[in-house]
Amino acid sequence: MNLELEKQLKELKERVEKLETGTKDQLSMVVFSGDLDKILAALIISTGAAAYDMKVKLFFTFWAISALRDPEKSGKGKNLMEKMFGMMLPRGAGKVKLSNMNMGGMGTAMIKGIMKKHKVASLEELISIAGENGVEINICEMSMNLMGFKKEEMIDYPNLRFAGAATFVADANESSMQLFI
Amino acid sequence: MNLELEKQLKELKERVEKLETGTKDQLSMVVFSGDLDKILAALIISTGAAAYDMKVKLFFTFWAISALRDPEKSGKGKNLMEKMFGMMLPRGAGKVKLSNMNMGGMGTAMIKGIMKKHKVASLEELISIAGENGVEINICEMSMNLMGFKKEEMIDYPNLRFAGAATFVADANESSMQLFI
Amino acid sequence: MNLELEKQLKELKERVEKLETGTKDQLSMVVFSGDLDKILAALIISTGAAAYDMKVKLFFTFWAISALRDPEKSGKGKNLMEKMFGMMLPRGAGKVKLSNMNMGGMGTAMIKGIMKKHKVASLEELISIAGENGVEINICEMSMNLMGFKKEEMIDYPNLRFAGAATFVADANESSMQLFI
Repeated sequence: MNLELEKQLKELKERVEKLETGTKDQLSMVVFSGDLDKILAALIISTGAAAYDMKVKLFFTFWAISALRDPEKSGKGKNLMEKMFGMMLPRGAGKVKLSNMNMGGMGTAMIKGIMKKHKVASLEELISIAGENGVEINICEMSMNLMGFKKEEMIDYPNLRFAGAATFVADANESSMQLFI
Repeated sequence: MNLELEKQLKELKERVEKLETGTKDQLSMVVFSGDLDKILAALIISTGAAAYDMKVKLFFTFWAISALRDPEKSGKGKNLMEKMFGMMLPRGAGKVKLSNMNMGGMGTAMIKGIMKKHKVASLEELISIAGENGVEINICEMSMNLMGFKKEEMIDYPNLRFAGAATFVADANESSMQLFI
Repeated sequence: MNLELEKQLKELKERVEKLETGTKDQLSMVVFSGDLDKILAALIISTGAAAYDMKVKLFFTFWAISALRDPEKSGKGKNLMEKMFGMMLPRGAGKVKLSNMNMGGMGTAMIKGIMKKHKVASLEELISIAGENGVEINICEMSMNLMGFKKEEMIDYPNLRFAGAATFVADANESSMQLFI
Protein backbone atom coordinates (compact mmCIF):
# COMPACT_ATOMS: atom_id res chain seq x y z
CA MET A 1 0.00 0.00 0.00
CA ASN A 2 2.79 2.39 0.88
CA LEU A 3 4.51 1.43 -2.32
CA GLU A 4 1.40 2.41 -4.27
CA LEU A 5 1.21 5.77 -2.47
CA GLU A 6 4.89 6.38 -3.10
CA LYS A 7 4.41 5.70 -6.79
CA GLN A 8 1.49 8.11 -7.01
CA LEU A 9 3.41 10.76 -5.14
CA LYS A 10 6.36 10.42 -7.47
CA GLU A 11 4.13 10.74 -10.52
CA LEU A 12 2.44 13.84 -9.08
CA LYS A 13 5.81 15.37 -8.28
CA GLU A 14 6.82 15.07 -11.94
CA ARG A 15 3.63 16.80 -13.03
CA VAL A 16 4.24 19.65 -10.58
CA GLU A 17 7.81 19.97 -11.87
CA LYS A 18 6.49 20.26 -15.42
CA LEU A 19 4.09 23.00 -14.32
CA GLU A 20 6.89 24.85 -12.54
CA THR A 21 9.09 24.78 -15.65
CA GLY A 22 6.19 26.14 -17.70
CA THR A 23 5.58 29.20 -15.56
CA LYS A 24 8.90 30.71 -14.66
CA ASP A 25 8.94 34.21 -13.20
CA GLN A 26 9.89 35.49 -16.61
CA LEU A 27 8.71 38.27 -18.91
CA SER A 28 9.00 37.75 -22.66
CA MET A 29 8.23 40.82 -24.72
CA VAL A 30 8.12 41.52 -28.44
CA VAL A 31 9.15 45.13 -29.01
CA PHE A 32 7.81 45.81 -32.48
CA SER A 33 6.95 49.50 -32.51
CA GLY A 34 9.47 52.14 -33.50
CA ASP A 35 7.70 54.88 -31.54
CA LEU A 36 9.52 56.57 -28.67
CA ASP A 37 6.50 56.38 -26.35
CA LYS A 38 5.96 52.66 -26.88
CA ILE A 39 9.65 51.74 -26.56
CA LEU A 40 9.77 53.82 -23.38
CA ALA A 41 6.79 51.84 -22.04
CA ALA A 42 8.54 48.58 -22.96
CA LEU A 43 11.71 49.60 -21.13
CA ILE A 44 9.88 50.96 -18.07
CA ILE A 45 7.99 47.66 -17.71
CA SER A 46 11.21 45.69 -18.34
CA THR A 47 13.33 47.49 -15.78
CA GLY A 48 10.40 47.30 -13.35
CA ALA A 49 10.21 43.54 -13.84
CA ALA A 50 13.99 43.18 -13.47
CA ALA A 51 13.82 45.14 -10.20
CA TYR A 52 11.15 42.65 -9.14
CA ASP A 53 13.71 39.88 -9.76
CA MET A 54 12.06 38.55 -12.88
CA LYS A 55 14.09 37.31 -15.81
CA VAL A 56 13.33 39.64 -18.74
CA LYS A 57 13.80 38.72 -22.40
CA LEU A 58 13.09 41.37 -25.05
CA PHE A 59 12.70 40.55 -28.74
CA PHE A 60 13.26 43.65 -30.84
CA THR A 61 11.76 43.29 -34.29
CA PHE A 62 10.75 45.41 -37.29
CA TRP A 63 10.70 49.18 -36.56
CA ALA A 64 11.94 48.83 -32.98
CA ILE A 65 15.36 47.69 -34.20
CA SER A 66 16.10 51.28 -35.26
CA ALA A 67 16.25 52.25 -31.59
CA LEU A 68 19.19 49.87 -31.11
CA ARG A 69 21.34 51.39 -33.85
CA ASP A 70 24.51 53.04 -32.66
CA PRO A 71 24.71 56.45 -34.40
CA GLU A 72 28.53 56.25 -34.30
CA LYS A 73 28.70 52.92 -36.11
CA SER A 74 27.88 52.05 -39.68
CA GLY A 75 27.39 48.78 -41.52
CA LYS A 76 29.63 47.75 -44.38
CA GLY A 77 28.82 46.15 -47.71
CA LYS A 78 25.34 47.60 -48.05
CA ASN A 79 23.54 47.74 -51.37
CA LEU A 80 21.64 50.82 -52.56
CA MET A 81 18.30 49.76 -51.04
CA GLU A 82 19.93 49.03 -47.68
CA LYS A 83 21.67 52.41 -47.72
CA MET A 84 18.31 54.11 -48.44
CA PHE A 85 16.58 52.31 -45.57
CA GLY A 86 19.47 53.18 -43.30
CA MET A 87 19.00 56.85 -44.11
CA MET A 88 15.22 56.85 -43.81
CA LEU A 89 14.96 54.97 -40.51
CA PRO A 90 15.92 56.61 -37.20
CA ARG A 91 19.55 56.24 -36.23
CA GLY A 92 19.28 55.13 -32.61
CA ALA A 93 17.30 55.68 -29.41
CA GLY A 94 17.94 59.42 -29.55
CA LYS A 95 16.14 59.74 -32.87
CA VAL A 96 12.89 57.79 -32.50
CA LYS A 97 9.71 59.88 -32.47
CA LEU A 98 6.39 59.92 -30.62
CA SER A 99 3.52 57.90 -32.17
CA ASN A 100 1.26 60.86 -31.58
CA MET A 101 1.62 64.66 -31.46
CA ASN A 102 5.12 64.49 -32.90
CA MET A 103 4.35 67.75 -34.74
CA GLY A 104 7.47 67.74 -36.85
CA GLY A 105 9.64 66.77 -33.88
CA MET A 106 8.34 69.55 -31.58
CA GLY A 107 6.09 67.25 -29.55
CA THR A 108 8.91 64.73 -29.14
CA ALA A 109 11.27 67.46 -27.97
CA MET A 110 8.63 68.77 -25.54
CA ILE A 111 8.04 65.35 -23.99
CA LYS A 112 11.80 64.81 -23.62
CA GLY A 113 12.07 68.18 -21.90
CA ILE A 114 9.22 67.35 -19.51
CA MET A 115 10.72 63.92 -18.76
CA LYS A 116 14.03 65.58 -17.87
CA LYS A 117 12.28 68.10 -15.62
CA HIS A 118 10.40 65.28 -13.86
CA LYS A 119 13.69 63.35 -13.55
CA VAL A 120 12.36 60.42 -15.61
CA ALA A 121 15.17 58.45 -17.26
CA SER A 122 15.58 58.95 -21.02
CA LEU A 123 15.30 56.01 -23.42
CA GLU A 124 19.10 55.83 -23.73
CA GLU A 125 19.42 55.74 -19.92
CA LEU A 126 16.67 53.12 -19.60
CA ILE A 127 18.45 50.87 -22.10
CA SER A 128 21.63 51.23 -20.11
CA ILE A 129 19.79 50.49 -16.80
CA ALA A 130 18.19 47.45 -18.44
CA GLY A 131 21.62 46.17 -19.48
CA GLU A 132 23.02 46.61 -15.97
CA ASN A 133 20.08 44.69 -14.53
CA GLY A 134 20.38 41.64 -16.73
CA VAL A 135 17.58 42.36 -19.19
CA GLU A 136 18.35 40.23 -22.25
CA ILE A 137 17.87 41.87 -25.67
CA ASN A 138 17.34 39.68 -28.72
CA ILE A 139 17.22 41.23 -32.17
CA CYS A 140 15.10 39.46 -34.75
CA GLU A 141 17.66 38.51 -37.35
CA MET A 142 15.16 38.20 -40.19
CA SER A 143 13.75 41.72 -39.76
CA MET A 144 17.25 43.10 -39.30
CA ASN A 145 18.23 41.63 -42.65
CA LEU A 146 15.02 42.85 -44.32
CA MET A 147 15.73 46.39 -43.14
CA GLY A 148 19.30 46.14 -44.31
CA PHE A 149 20.86 46.64 -40.89
CA LYS A 150 24.13 44.94 -40.02
CA LYS A 151 25.06 43.41 -36.66
CA GLU A 152 28.04 45.73 -36.34
CA GLU A 153 25.74 48.79 -36.41
CA MET A 154 24.02 47.84 -33.19
CA ILE A 155 24.75 49.36 -29.77
CA ASP A 156 27.10 47.77 -27.27
CA TYR A 157 24.83 45.93 -24.86
CA PRO A 158 25.81 43.27 -22.33
CA ASN A 159 23.25 40.65 -23.37
CA LEU A 160 22.69 41.35 -27.05
CA ARG A 161 21.77 38.31 -29.11
CA PHE A 162 20.43 37.67 -32.59
CA ALA A 163 17.52 35.27 -32.77
CA GLY A 164 14.39 34.21 -34.63
CA ALA A 165 10.69 33.85 -33.92
CA ALA A 166 11.24 30.26 -32.70
CA THR A 167 13.36 31.55 -29.82
CA PHE A 168 10.66 34.00 -28.83
CA VAL A 169 7.95 31.35 -28.92
CA ALA A 170 9.98 28.88 -26.85
CA ASP A 171 10.89 31.51 -24.24
CA ALA A 172 7.43 33.09 -24.12
CA ASN A 173 5.70 29.75 -23.68
CA GLU A 174 7.54 29.11 -20.43
CA SER A 175 7.17 32.69 -19.20
CA SER A 176 4.65 33.84 -16.62
CA MET A 177 4.11 37.02 -18.63
CA GLN A 178 4.13 37.93 -22.33
CA LEU A 179 3.54 41.25 -24.05
CA PHE A 180 3.64 42.58 -27.62
CA ILE A 181 4.38 46.27 -27.79
CA MET B 1 7.86 5.31 6.18
CA ASN B 2 4.53 7.03 6.52
CA LEU B 3 6.31 9.94 8.10
CA GLU B 4 8.56 10.21 5.06
CA LEU B 5 5.53 10.12 2.74
CA GLU B 6 3.77 12.74 4.82
CA LYS B 7 6.79 14.99 4.63
CA GLN B 8 7.01 14.66 0.85
CA LEU B 9 3.30 15.28 0.50
CA LYS B 10 3.50 18.44 2.59
CA GLU B 11 6.42 19.75 0.52
CA LEU B 12 4.53 19.04 -2.71
CA LYS B 13 1.44 20.78 -1.35
CA GLU B 14 3.48 23.94 -0.80
CA ARG B 15 4.77 23.85 -4.34
CA VAL B 16 1.24 23.45 -5.69
CA GLU B 17 0.07 26.38 -3.55
CA LYS B 18 2.86 28.52 -4.99
CA LEU B 19 1.78 27.57 -8.52
CA GLU B 20 -1.84 28.39 -7.69
CA THR B 21 -0.91 31.85 -6.40
CA GLY B 22 1.08 32.49 -9.56
CA THR B 23 -1.77 31.82 -11.96
CA LYS B 24 -4.92 33.42 -10.61
CA ASP B 25 -7.89 33.76 -12.92
CA GLN B 26 -6.90 37.34 -13.48
CA LEU B 27 -6.45 39.65 -16.47
CA SER B 28 -3.86 42.43 -16.24
CA MET B 29 -3.92 44.84 -19.12
CA VAL B 30 -1.87 47.91 -20.02
CA VAL B 31 -4.11 50.33 -21.89
CA PHE B 32 -1.58 52.58 -23.62
CA SER B 33 -3.27 53.68 -26.83
CA GLY B 34 -5.42 56.79 -27.00
CA ASP B 35 -7.37 55.52 -30.01
CA LEU B 36 -11.11 54.96 -29.68
CA ASP B 37 -11.01 51.60 -31.46
CA LYS B 38 -8.24 50.19 -29.27
CA ILE B 39 -9.75 51.43 -25.99
CA LEU B 40 -13.08 49.94 -27.10
CA ALA B 41 -11.32 46.61 -27.67
CA ALA B 42 -9.70 46.85 -24.22
CA LEU B 43 -13.06 47.49 -22.54
CA ILE B 44 -14.90 44.81 -24.52
CA ILE B 45 -12.29 42.21 -23.50
CA SER B 46 -12.35 43.50 -19.90
CA THR B 47 -16.10 43.39 -19.45
CA GLY B 48 -16.11 39.98 -21.16
CA ALA B 49 -13.52 38.72 -18.69
CA ALA B 50 -15.43 40.21 -15.73
CA ALA B 51 -18.60 38.44 -16.93
CA TYR B 52 -16.50 35.26 -16.97
CA ASP B 53 -15.78 35.90 -13.25
CA MET B 54 -12.17 36.88 -13.78
CA LYS B 55 -10.57 39.62 -11.74
CA VAL B 56 -9.65 42.41 -14.16
CA LYS B 57 -6.98 45.05 -13.54
CA LEU B 58 -6.46 47.78 -16.11
CA PHE B 59 -3.42 50.05 -16.14
CA PHE B 60 -4.11 53.20 -18.13
CA THR B 61 -0.94 54.90 -19.23
CA PHE B 62 0.30 57.56 -21.71
CA TRP B 63 -2.35 58.51 -24.32
CA ALA B 64 -5.08 56.30 -22.89
CA ILE B 65 -5.34 58.47 -19.78
CA SER B 66 -7.09 61.13 -21.89
CA ALA B 67 -10.11 58.82 -22.15
CA LEU B 68 -10.52 58.96 -18.36
CA ARG B 69 -10.69 62.76 -18.16
CA ASP B 70 -14.00 64.14 -16.99
CA PRO B 71 -14.94 66.97 -19.40
CA GLU B 72 -16.82 68.74 -16.59
CA LYS B 73 -13.81 68.83 -14.28
CA SER B 74 -10.57 70.77 -14.53
CA GLY B 75 -7.25 70.57 -12.72
CA LYS B 76 -5.93 73.48 -10.70
CA GLY B 77 -2.45 74.93 -10.41
CA LYS B 78 -1.33 74.00 -13.93
CA ASN B 79 1.66 75.66 -15.58
CA LEU B 80 1.58 76.86 -19.18
CA MET B 81 2.89 73.60 -20.65
CA GLU B 82 0.31 71.57 -18.69
CA LYS B 83 -2.48 73.86 -19.87
CA MET B 84 -1.32 73.41 -23.48
CA PHE B 85 -1.27 69.61 -23.17
CA GLY B 86 -4.68 69.73 -21.56
CA MET B 87 -6.06 71.60 -24.56
CA MET B 88 -4.35 69.46 -27.18
CA LEU B 89 -5.27 66.06 -25.75
CA PRO B 90 -8.83 64.70 -25.97
CA ARG B 91 -11.05 65.66 -23.04
CA GLY B 92 -12.63 62.32 -22.14
CA ALA B 93 -14.02 59.12 -23.64
CA GLY B 94 -16.40 61.08 -25.85
CA LYS B 95 -13.54 62.81 -27.63
CA VAL B 96 -11.04 60.07 -28.50
CA LYS B 97 -10.68 59.29 -32.21
CA LEU B 98 -10.23 56.23 -34.41
CA SER B 99 -6.64 55.11 -35.13
CA ASN B 100 -7.58 54.75 -38.77
CA MET B 101 -10.05 56.37 -41.18
CA ASN B 102 -10.76 59.18 -38.73
CA MET B 103 -11.07 61.55 -41.73
CA GLY B 104 -11.24 64.72 -39.69
CA GLY B 105 -13.69 63.15 -37.26
CA MET B 106 -16.13 61.92 -39.92
CA GLY B 107 -15.02 58.28 -39.71
CA THR B 108 -15.20 58.35 -35.91
CA ALA B 109 -18.75 59.78 -36.06
CA MET B 110 -19.75 57.15 -38.63
CA ILE B 111 -18.48 54.27 -36.50
CA LYS B 112 -20.27 55.65 -33.44
CA GLY B 113 -23.51 55.87 -35.47
CA ILE B 114 -23.12 52.29 -36.68
CA MET B 115 -22.38 51.08 -33.14
CA LYS B 116 -25.57 52.75 -31.91
CA LYS B 117 -27.59 51.19 -34.72
CA HIS B 118 -26.16 47.76 -33.89
CA LYS B 119 -26.90 48.38 -30.18
CA VAL B 120 -23.21 48.08 -29.25
CA ALA B 121 -22.40 49.94 -26.02
CA SER B 122 -20.47 53.21 -26.43
CA LEU B 123 -17.07 53.69 -24.75
CA GLU B 124 -18.68 55.75 -21.96
CA GLU B 125 -21.24 52.99 -21.35
CA LEU B 126 -18.56 50.28 -21.41
CA ILE B 127 -16.51 52.15 -18.79
CA SER B 128 -19.61 52.38 -16.62
CA ILE B 129 -20.40 48.65 -17.11
CA ALA B 130 -16.78 47.85 -16.23
CA GLY B 131 -17.09 49.85 -13.01
CA GLU B 132 -20.31 48.08 -12.02
CA ASN B 133 -18.65 44.71 -12.60
CA GLY B 134 -15.63 45.29 -10.44
CA VAL B 135 -13.04 46.02 -13.14
CA GLU B 136 -10.22 47.86 -11.38
CA ILE B 137 -8.73 50.87 -13.16
CA ASN B 138 -5.23 52.03 -12.27
CA ILE B 139 -3.84 55.21 -13.74
CA CYS B 140 -0.09 55.39 -14.23
CA GLU B 141 0.86 58.26 -11.96
CA MET B 142 4.12 59.04 -13.75
CA SER B 143 2.51 59.43 -17.20
CA MET B 144 -0.33 61.43 -15.67
CA ASN B 145 2.21 63.86 -14.26
CA LEU B 146 4.18 64.00 -17.52
CA MET B 147 1.01 64.92 -19.40
CA GLY B 148 0.12 67.50 -16.81
CA PHE B 149 -3.15 65.90 -15.77
CA LYS B 150 -4.37 66.20 -12.18
CA LYS B 151 -6.12 63.48 -10.16
CA GLU B 152 -9.18 65.70 -9.68
CA GLU B 153 -9.73 65.86 -13.47
CA MET B 154 -10.41 62.13 -13.74
CA ILE B 155 -13.85 60.54 -13.98
CA ASP B 156 -15.73 59.19 -10.98
CA TYR B 157 -15.08 55.46 -11.07
CA PRO B 158 -15.65 52.94 -8.28
CA ASN B 159 -12.19 51.37 -8.32
CA LEU B 160 -9.95 54.15 -9.54
CA ARG B 161 -6.39 54.00 -8.22
CA PHE B 162 -3.11 55.71 -9.01
CA ALA B 163 -0.15 53.39 -9.37
CA GLY B 164 3.22 52.78 -10.97
CA ALA B 165 4.83 50.23 -13.27
CA ALA B 166 5.84 48.11 -10.26
CA THR B 167 2.15 47.53 -9.41
CA PHE B 168 1.46 46.40 -12.96
CA VAL B 169 4.40 44.02 -13.02
CA ALA B 170 3.48 42.46 -9.65
CA ASP B 171 -0.18 42.03 -10.64
CA ALA B 172 0.56 40.83 -14.16
CA ASN B 173 3.08 38.25 -12.98
CA GLU B 174 0.43 36.45 -10.95
CA SER B 175 -2.26 36.79 -13.64
CA SER B 176 -3.32 34.04 -15.98
CA MET B 177 -3.59 36.58 -18.79
CA GLN B 178 -1.73 39.78 -19.75
CA LEU B 179 -2.27 42.14 -22.66
CA PHE B 180 -0.77 45.43 -23.86
CA ILE B 181 -3.18 47.46 -25.96
CA MET C 1 -3.14 6.80 8.55
CA ASN C 2 -2.66 5.54 5.01
CA LEU C 3 -6.27 6.43 4.33
CA GLU C 4 -5.59 9.98 5.42
CA LEU C 5 -2.50 10.17 3.18
CA GLU C 6 -4.47 8.75 0.27
CA LYS C 7 -7.16 11.36 0.75
CA GLN C 8 -4.64 14.19 0.81
CA LEU C 9 -2.91 12.82 -2.27
CA LYS C 10 -6.21 12.63 -4.15
CA GLU C 11 -7.08 16.21 -3.24
CA LEU C 12 -3.64 17.41 -4.35
CA LYS C 13 -3.98 15.52 -7.63
CA GLU C 14 -7.19 17.40 -8.37
CA ARG C 15 -5.51 20.73 -7.75
CA VAL C 16 -2.63 19.78 -10.07
CA GLU C 17 -5.14 18.76 -12.74
CA LYS C 18 -6.85 22.14 -12.45
CA LEU C 19 -3.47 23.88 -12.87
CA GLU C 20 -2.67 21.73 -15.90
CA THR C 21 -6.00 22.64 -17.57
CA GLY C 22 -5.30 26.31 -16.92
CA THR C 23 -1.96 26.40 -18.67
CA LYS C 24 -2.21 24.45 -21.88
CA ASP C 25 0.56 24.82 -24.44
CA GLN C 26 -1.64 27.22 -26.31
CA LEU C 27 -1.25 30.66 -27.88
CA SER C 28 -4.31 32.93 -28.00
CA MET C 29 -3.80 36.09 -30.01
CA VAL C 30 -6.01 39.07 -30.80
CA VAL C 31 -5.09 40.35 -34.27
CA PHE C 32 -6.53 43.86 -34.21
CA SER C 33 -4.24 45.89 -36.46
CA GLY C 34 -4.87 46.20 -40.17
CA ASP C 35 -1.22 46.97 -40.92
CA LEU C 36 0.75 44.60 -43.13
CA ASP C 37 3.79 44.63 -40.85
CA LYS C 38 1.81 43.78 -37.71
CA ILE C 39 -0.27 41.05 -39.36
CA LEU C 40 2.96 39.59 -40.74
CA ALA C 41 4.38 39.55 -37.21
CA ALA C 42 1.20 37.85 -35.94
CA LEU C 43 1.44 35.15 -38.60
CA ILE C 44 5.18 34.60 -38.18
CA ILE C 45 4.72 34.08 -34.43
CA SER C 46 1.67 31.85 -35.05
CA THR C 47 3.32 29.58 -37.57
CA GLY C 48 6.40 29.47 -35.33
CA ALA C 49 4.24 28.39 -32.38
CA ALA C 50 2.42 25.80 -34.51
CA ALA C 51 5.80 24.39 -35.60
CA TYR C 52 6.61 24.17 -31.88
CA ASP C 53 3.49 21.98 -31.51
CA MET C 54 1.46 24.59 -29.72
CA LYS C 55 -2.26 24.97 -30.35
CA VAL C 56 -2.75 28.43 -31.88
CA LYS C 57 -6.01 30.39 -31.81
CA LEU C 58 -6.18 33.73 -33.60
CA PHE C 59 -9.00 36.22 -33.06
CA PHE C 60 -9.18 38.67 -35.96
CA THR C 61 -11.04 41.81 -35.02
CA PHE C 62 -11.56 45.40 -36.23
CA TRP C 63 -9.11 46.44 -38.99
CA ALA C 64 -7.40 43.06 -39.22
CA ILE C 65 -10.54 41.46 -40.67
CA SER C 66 -9.85 43.26 -43.96
CA ALA C 67 -6.86 40.99 -44.48
CA LEU C 68 -9.17 37.96 -44.53
CA ARG C 69 -11.40 39.28 -47.31
CA ASP C 70 -11.31 37.29 -50.51
CA PRO C 71 -10.92 39.81 -53.37
CA GLU C 72 -12.83 37.45 -55.68
CA LYS C 73 -15.89 37.25 -53.44
CA SER C 74 -18.46 39.89 -52.55
CA GLY C 75 -21.16 40.12 -49.91
CA LYS C 76 -24.82 40.43 -50.84
CA GLY C 77 -27.59 42.59 -49.38
CA LYS C 78 -25.32 45.44 -48.26
CA ASN C 79 -26.69 48.89 -47.50
CA LEU C 80 -25.03 52.08 -48.74
CA MET C 81 -22.83 52.51 -45.65
CA GLU C 82 -21.64 48.90 -45.85
CA LYS C 83 -20.82 49.31 -49.54
CA MET C 84 -18.80 52.45 -48.73
CA PHE C 85 -16.83 50.69 -45.98
CA GLY C 86 -16.25 47.78 -48.33
CA MET C 87 -14.69 50.11 -50.87
CA MET C 88 -12.61 52.08 -48.40
CA LEU C 89 -11.11 49.14 -46.50
CA PRO C 90 -8.42 46.93 -48.07
CA ARG C 91 -9.74 43.99 -50.05
CA GLY C 92 -7.63 41.13 -48.70
CA ALA C 93 -4.11 40.24 -47.56
CA GLY C 94 -2.64 41.51 -50.83
CA LYS C 95 -3.91 45.03 -50.20
CA VAL C 96 -3.01 45.84 -46.59
CA LYS C 97 -0.34 48.51 -46.10
CA LEU C 98 2.64 49.16 -43.83
CA SER C 99 1.95 51.07 -40.58
CA ASN C 100 4.98 53.18 -41.31
CA MET C 101 6.84 54.44 -44.39
CA ASN C 102 3.99 53.38 -46.66
CA MET C 103 4.72 56.47 -48.80
CA GLY C 104 1.66 56.12 -51.00
CA GLY C 105 2.21 52.39 -51.40
CA MET C 106 5.84 52.66 -52.48
CA GLY C 107 7.25 51.58 -49.09
CA THR C 108 4.86 48.63 -48.96
CA ALA C 109 5.88 47.55 -52.45
CA MET C 110 9.55 47.92 -51.54
CA ILE C 111 9.21 45.75 -48.42
CA LYS C 112 7.34 43.10 -50.40
CA GLY C 113 10.12 43.11 -52.99
CA ILE C 114 12.79 42.75 -50.31
CA MET C 115 10.83 39.93 -48.62
CA LYS C 116 10.65 38.07 -51.92
CA LYS C 117 14.37 38.55 -52.50
CA HIS C 118 15.12 37.23 -49.00
CA LYS C 119 12.73 34.31 -49.64
CA VAL C 120 10.47 35.32 -46.74
CA ALA C 121 6.91 34.04 -47.21
CA SER C 122 4.31 36.66 -48.19
CA LEU C 123 1.27 37.32 -45.98
CA GLU C 124 -0.93 35.25 -48.30
CA GLU C 125 1.55 32.36 -48.12
CA LEU C 126 1.82 32.63 -44.33
CA ILE C 127 -1.98 32.45 -43.99
CA SER C 128 -1.97 29.36 -46.12
CA ILE C 129 0.89 27.78 -44.10
CA ALA C 130 -1.03 28.62 -40.91
CA GLY C 131 -4.10 26.84 -42.25
CA GLU C 132 -2.11 23.74 -43.18
CA ASN C 133 -0.62 23.63 -39.69
CA GLY C 134 -3.85 23.76 -37.77
CA VAL C 135 -3.81 27.41 -36.71
CA GLU C 136 -7.42 28.27 -35.88
CA ILE C 137 -8.75 31.61 -37.11
CA ASN C 138 -11.74 33.17 -35.38
CA ILE C 139 -13.32 36.31 -36.80
CA CYS C 140 -14.98 38.64 -34.30
CA GLU C 141 -18.57 38.59 -35.47
CA MET C 142 -19.49 41.91 -33.88
CA SER C 143 -16.68 43.87 -35.60
CA MET C 144 -17.40 42.09 -38.87
CA ASN C 145 -21.00 43.30 -38.66
CA LEU C 146 -19.95 46.84 -37.67
CA MET C 147 -17.67 47.03 -40.71
CA GLY C 148 -20.42 45.69 -42.93
CA PHE C 149 -18.53 42.58 -44.02
CA LYS C 150 -20.42 39.38 -44.77
CA LYS C 151 -19.27 35.86 -43.90
CA GLU C 152 -19.36 34.84 -47.58
CA GLU C 153 -16.72 37.49 -48.42
CA MET C 154 -14.07 35.82 -46.29
CA ILE C 155 -11.26 33.61 -47.62
CA ASP C 156 -11.50 29.83 -47.71
CA TYR C 157 -9.59 28.69 -44.64
CA PRO C 158 -9.64 25.26 -43.01
CA ASN C 159 -10.44 26.37 -39.45
CA LEU C 160 -12.39 29.59 -39.96
CA ARG C 161 -14.93 30.34 -37.23
CA PHE C 162 -17.03 33.31 -36.21
CA ALA C 163 -16.92 34.12 -32.52
CA GLY C 164 -17.20 36.80 -29.85
CA ALA C 165 -15.03 38.30 -27.12
CA ALA C 166 -16.27 35.66 -24.66
CA THR C 167 -14.64 32.93 -26.76
CA PHE C 168 -11.35 34.79 -26.78
CA VAL C 169 -11.41 35.33 -23.02
CA ALA C 170 -12.23 31.69 -22.28
CA ASP C 171 -9.52 30.41 -24.63
CA ALA C 172 -6.91 32.96 -23.59
CA ASN C 173 -7.43 32.28 -19.89
CA GLU C 174 -6.37 28.67 -20.30
CA SER C 175 -3.52 29.47 -22.67
CA SER C 176 0.11 29.58 -21.69
CA MET C 177 0.60 32.62 -23.93
CA GLN C 178 -1.54 35.59 -24.96
CA LEU C 179 -0.78 38.49 -27.25
CA PHE C 180 -2.65 41.51 -28.63
CA ILE C 181 -1.27 42.73 -31.94
